[in-house]
Amino acid sequence: MALIVQKYGGTSVGSVERIRLVAERVARARAEGHSLVVVVSAMSGETNRLLALGRELAGSPDPREMDALVATGEQVSAALVAIALSDRGVPARSLLGHQVRLMTDDAFTKARIKAIDDSRLLKVLDAGRVAVVAGFQGVDEEGNITTLGRGGSDTTAVAIAAALGAEVCEIYTDVDGVYTADPRVCPSARKIERISYEEMLELASLGAKVLQLRSVEVAMKYGVAVHVRTSFSEETGTMVTKEDASLESIVVTGVTSDRNTAKVTIRGVVDQPGIAAAVFEALAQRHVSVDMIIQNVSEDGRTDLTFTVAQDDADTACAIAAEALVEKREVLVDPDVVKVSIVGLGMRSHAGVAARMFRLLADASVNIQAISTSEIKVSCLIEARHADLAVRTLHDGFLG
Amino acid sequence: MALIVQKYGGTSVGSVERIRLVAERVARARAEGHSLVVVVSAMSGETNRLLALGRELAGSPDPREMDALVATGEQVSAALVAIALSDRGVPARSLLGHQVRLMTDDAFTKARIKAIDDSRLLKVLDAGRVAVVAGFQGVDEEGNITTLGRGGSDTTAVAIAAALGAEVCEIYTDVDGVYTADPRVCPSARKIERISYEEMLELASLGAKVLQLRSVEVAMKYGVAVHVRTSFSEETGTMVTKEDASLESIVVTGVTSDRNTAKVTIRGVVDQPGIAAAVFEALAQRHVSVDMIIQNVSEDGRTDLTFTVAQDDADTACAIAAEALVEKREVLVDPDVVKVSIVGLGMRSHAGVAARMFRLLADASVNIQAISTSEIKVSCLIEARHADLAVRTLHDGFLG
Repeated sequence: MALIVQKYGGTSVGSVERIRLVAERVARARAEGHSLVVVVSAMSGETNRLLALGRELAGSPDPREMDALVATGEQVSAALVAIALSDRGVPARSLLGHQVRLMTDDAFTKARIKAIDDSRLLKVLDAGRVAVVAGFQGVDEEGNITTLGRGGSDTTAVAIAAALGAEVCEIYTDVDGVYTADPRVCPSARKIERISYEEMLELASLGAKVLQLRSVEVAMKYGVAVHVRTSFSEETGTMVTKEDASLESIVVTGVTSDRNTAKVTIRGVVDQPGIAAAVFEALAQRHVSVDMIIQNVSEDGRTDLTFTVAQDDADTACAIAAEALVEKREVLVDPDVVKVSIVGLGMRSHAGVAARMFRLLADASVNIQAISTSEIKVSCLIEARHADLAVRTLHDGFLG
Repeated sequence: MALIVQKYGGTSVGSVERIRLVAERVARARAEGHSLVVVVSAMSGETNRLLALGRELAGSPDPREMDALVATGEQVSAALVAIALSDRGVPARSLLGHQVRLMTDDAFTKARIKAIDDSRLLKVLDAGRVAVVAGFQGVDEEGNITTLGRGGSDTTAVAIAAALGAEVCEIYTDVDGVYTADPRVCPSARKIERISYEEMLELASLGAKVLQLRSVEVAMKYGVAVHVRTSFSEETGTMVTKEDASLESIVVTGVTSDRNTAKVTIRGVVDQPGIAAAVFEALAQRHVSVDMIIQNVSEDGRTDLTFTVAQDDADTACAIAAEALVEKREVLVDPDVVKVSIVGLGMRSHAGVAARMFRLLADASVNIQAISTSEIKVSCLIEARHADLAVRTLHDGFLG
């Protein structure tokens, strides 16, 4: 008998038939004697439908109202799952963000969880009921509905698992676990059985879409065991957990590529102190995150300053950079780039991993435009057309 | 400068284009200097879509969860109207049942309002914002979402107007007011300019669908002036108000027909005390409302006992009646009946109105199966096929 949090994504609750299957799985876990909190996403397609309605009415719709609008998607799913459970004889109650008192700040559309009042959840569980929680949503101090940003239901689930001290947080999704690389790109990719929080964080921030970044941060902070698995079979998936000796022995755990990156280049800036500072200060003030930065060796006292940002931010970054320069220079945007990365705890104790990555790419005739590293990852910016080749090359080189 | 409550029905918010028109109308009223609370229904068709989803999952879906499910319809409308208003530069905030603290009992799917906390509404209004309230929904003492039953948004609007002491509660609908008869049936029907609460109550309970019965009860109790009008033009509609001398001088204000009635007949019951009591007690215990009752003169100590109920209740009523009889008798249901009624304050001081009604129907060869009266109405049960003829005959006879 354990307390388990299960989270079902949009595909898993995408139709009445699918919702029945979810109810069946929940009923089975309950028959085994477990206490269950079920966190649900909106039915697949519903969030986009609601966003489109709001955007049809206004160019930049009021973010508070967009949150009240899209939060209905998860409310519908939660009520339907509770209806399906009750119909099977499993007592259940849907709970919304304001009912769980999942408190957030008031940063509408991307709010952060501040606290969860576990008393309401425990009351439902103590009454022998399954608590079906609408994911993705919370409530601020004034009682306004907030949402946690795309993929926020993962974070809801992990945060609830942390608040209740659940034995495990099972994330049911349409893939059966975390892979060493995207199987659609790399046929030799394998499912990873166990992965550390640190590696999962890097993978999530480097383009692996299986878990939302925030949810991994919360899991790591509170030591929540996260089991990523599919709702379409009984197979076990990937366990995200604390690092241990067995995990550290693996040099490279996964290879990712991230197409959501664009390169901005300022041509011929004067190579003197303060120029780069002015540009990056201006970007930071406007909340544009800069990823990689490259400054070429100067020729004749002038140089090109290049950096990468998310594709959505590229035009804004371009305008801010142009504005920040006292001397007007040409600013170019190149969206045809991709960031390929290798991630692994073992890098910390293995020398030469980066060098081997550069060699593998060079042997495949892939030119590297920029490099960034952390303790457990190396990323290279390359031309977008080489993305799949680079992933396969690195996967086979390190994990083949 | 007044405080006005406006309620927009499902057709008025049925599309993005319609919502823009609502925003335009609200903006105009605000430009005239008024403070505004806007109450909205779900987009037309949405409530039925949600109900169907729930019913697909369970034969008798959990009522608490059905309320959580369908309440999303009004939440979507409220958020969209607030988005449209903000986009026009009119500051607005959507408020849900739990945010307005519209407190109800816990009779899910047909809850009754117990109290409204006006402080949250006043805070929004005092900040110079339009409060856009999701109609139809409330919250019980435990924080569960409840709904007020079909047409409940009318009641939300009138109850809020009462709580805030609004100058008027405008109900925007797809017809331009209350008519002396259904214009689709009776081409000579006219729009009524002013009508008393008492008459409106009778009309609403006798088949006129323009206002929900509960909303008229609340309006009468708190003296809220209700203006029923269309959102598709600037025309004034019908004002529902306190009775006064001018209203009392009109003998018949309106003619209605109600097809939602069925006749149940128990054949050959023993004509002795206690039989009818046993049947009607059993019906009352199971919450089946009986409308008209007819007991024929007995022959040989046996008689037919006939009564009418709403069509949905007919089969249940039939079973209950059969069960309540010690001696088994035949119980028949006839759904092919309709109740035609005339309503008017002036009846109280004019003799012979009922007799004239019976004469008009007789002259049109319409047979009367049962009669019921109140101070300000007379209803006759007739064959369904005569419904339209009877309405036209009575309208032309009394109002022509």
